[in-house]
Amino acid sequence: MPYLLVSTQIRLENGPTICGDEWSDKKLMEYLGATLQTLSGNNFSEYRVAQPPRVVLNKLEGLGYRVISMGGVGQSCIWTMYCESPKEPWKTV
Amino acid sequence: MPYLLVSTQIRLENGPTICGDEWSDKKLMEYLGATLQTLSGNNFSEYRVAQPPRVVLNKLEGLGYRVISMGGVGQSCIWTMYCESPKEPWKTV
Amino acid sequence: MPYLLVSTQIRLENGPTICGDEWSDKKLMEYLGATLQTLSGNNFSEYRVAQPPRVVLNKLEGLGYRVISMGGVGQSCIWTMYCESPKEPWKTV
Amino acid sequence: MPYLLVSTQIRLENGPTICGDEWSDKKLMEYLGATLQTLSGNNFSEYRVAQPPRVVLNKLEGLGYRVISMGGVGQSCIWTMYCESPKEPWKTV
Amino acid sequence: MPYLLVSTQIRLENGPTICGDEWSDKKLMEYLGATLQTLSGNNFSEYRVAQPPRVVLNKLEGLGYRVISMGGVGQSCIWTMYCESPKEPWKTV
Repeated sequence: MPYLLVSTQIRLENGPTICGDEWSDKKLMEYLGATLQTLSGNNFSEYRVAQPPRVVLNKLEGLGYRVISMGGVGQSCIWTMYCESPKEPWKTV
Repeated sequence: MPYLLVSTQIRLENGPTICGDEWSDKKLMEYLGATLQTLSGNNFSEYRVAQPPRVVLNKLEGLGYRVISMGGVGQSCIWTMYCESPKEPWKTV
Repeated sequence: MPYLLVSTQIRLENGPTICGDEWSDKKLMEYLGATLQTLSGNNFSEYRVAQPPRVVLNKLEGLGYRVISMGGVGQSCIWTMYCESPKEPWKTV
Repeated sequence: MPYLLVSTQIRLENGPTICGDEWSDKKLMEYLGATLQTLSGNNFSEYRVAQPPRVVLNKLEGLGYRVISMGGVGQSCIWTMYCESPKEPWKTV
Repeated sequence: MPYLLVSTQIRLENGPTICGDEWSDKKLMEYLGATLQTLSGNNFSEYRVAQPPRVVLNKLEGLGYRVISMGGVGQSCIWTMYCESPKEPWKTV
């Protein structure tokens, strides 16, 4: 799971932030506090968290993820994050 | 607080520049001269500063922040800045 | 073949993902599970895979490719990936 | 002045290129051959140069500036350039 | 000539790719197989090559150029490439 895509819509200063798709790592999504939702009219699911993207980027940074690049598509702002081997604080040693 | 999002609308050569959300570091926002505002029709607040984005990027660079990537969403231009451990000139030693 | 262009349309959380053009490396496309398609009305072909882009980026990362930059054009989100010398797991030694 | 914003509108292959705002370094703008203009309807000024952006990027590269990231906003294409300590060829030693 | 701008319109999987303006290095453009064209209604010229952008990026990589950043403006996708000292295979030693 080295790459993650984080996105938000229209405004940067509030949530929700989308941080995963149906096949994303369940433990990581749980750690971020994200819930899997299927919006009305969509035939796919996405993980959403209520916080603004800045807070999510900082939380992921704590696990070792770094922003590689960002871009805007339509009204969405998207960050590509990368981590060679993320810390897994939910793992019992 | 390693990641910061700085944005501006429509034109690069004048302000205001948006540099934080409701949960941003208060001391850092004060240092940048930003004030927390809730624009009419929005259900969230944002920190705004009157200067153009170039001036804000340079001010943040002085604290150790670097531009990682930029992108455009609709009429907004957004910079993602990163600093592992920012200088805190407002701290009394 | 050091550069690859990976793109998706409208949403990040589902496929298909476009990962090649008519002249792309056949072995690599086969490894990704992509098929060459000519959409109705197009006078060119493209390689498409059913998975969302995050899964494709991670698969390419395993071969040595890294995301250099991303951007949005119209309703497409595009990643430029680079690898100096990709692993070729389909090669018999 | 470590960060500079360079932008152009609609097409890449011709000028003008916008390279500064009202508070930009006057000596640097003079070196680039840029003039301060206030376009009709704007309540701010900008430095413009007649050459295409590629020529301006190369000129700035000669002073030590590097492109950090680029992005598109509406019909404008924007480059963020960075230099820790630019050469100042206009300085008499 | 350390910076180059490469762009394409609407789709990534076919050409033409625009790789230079009127003042671009003639030898480099010739090496890429690009021809100088003035499209109807334009008051400037541009170098165009029939191949898709991925092929052009790979060709330039062989000379030492690297993609620094990419972005989308309107329906164009643009890459900024950089090379400190490009190989010049057309030079007779």
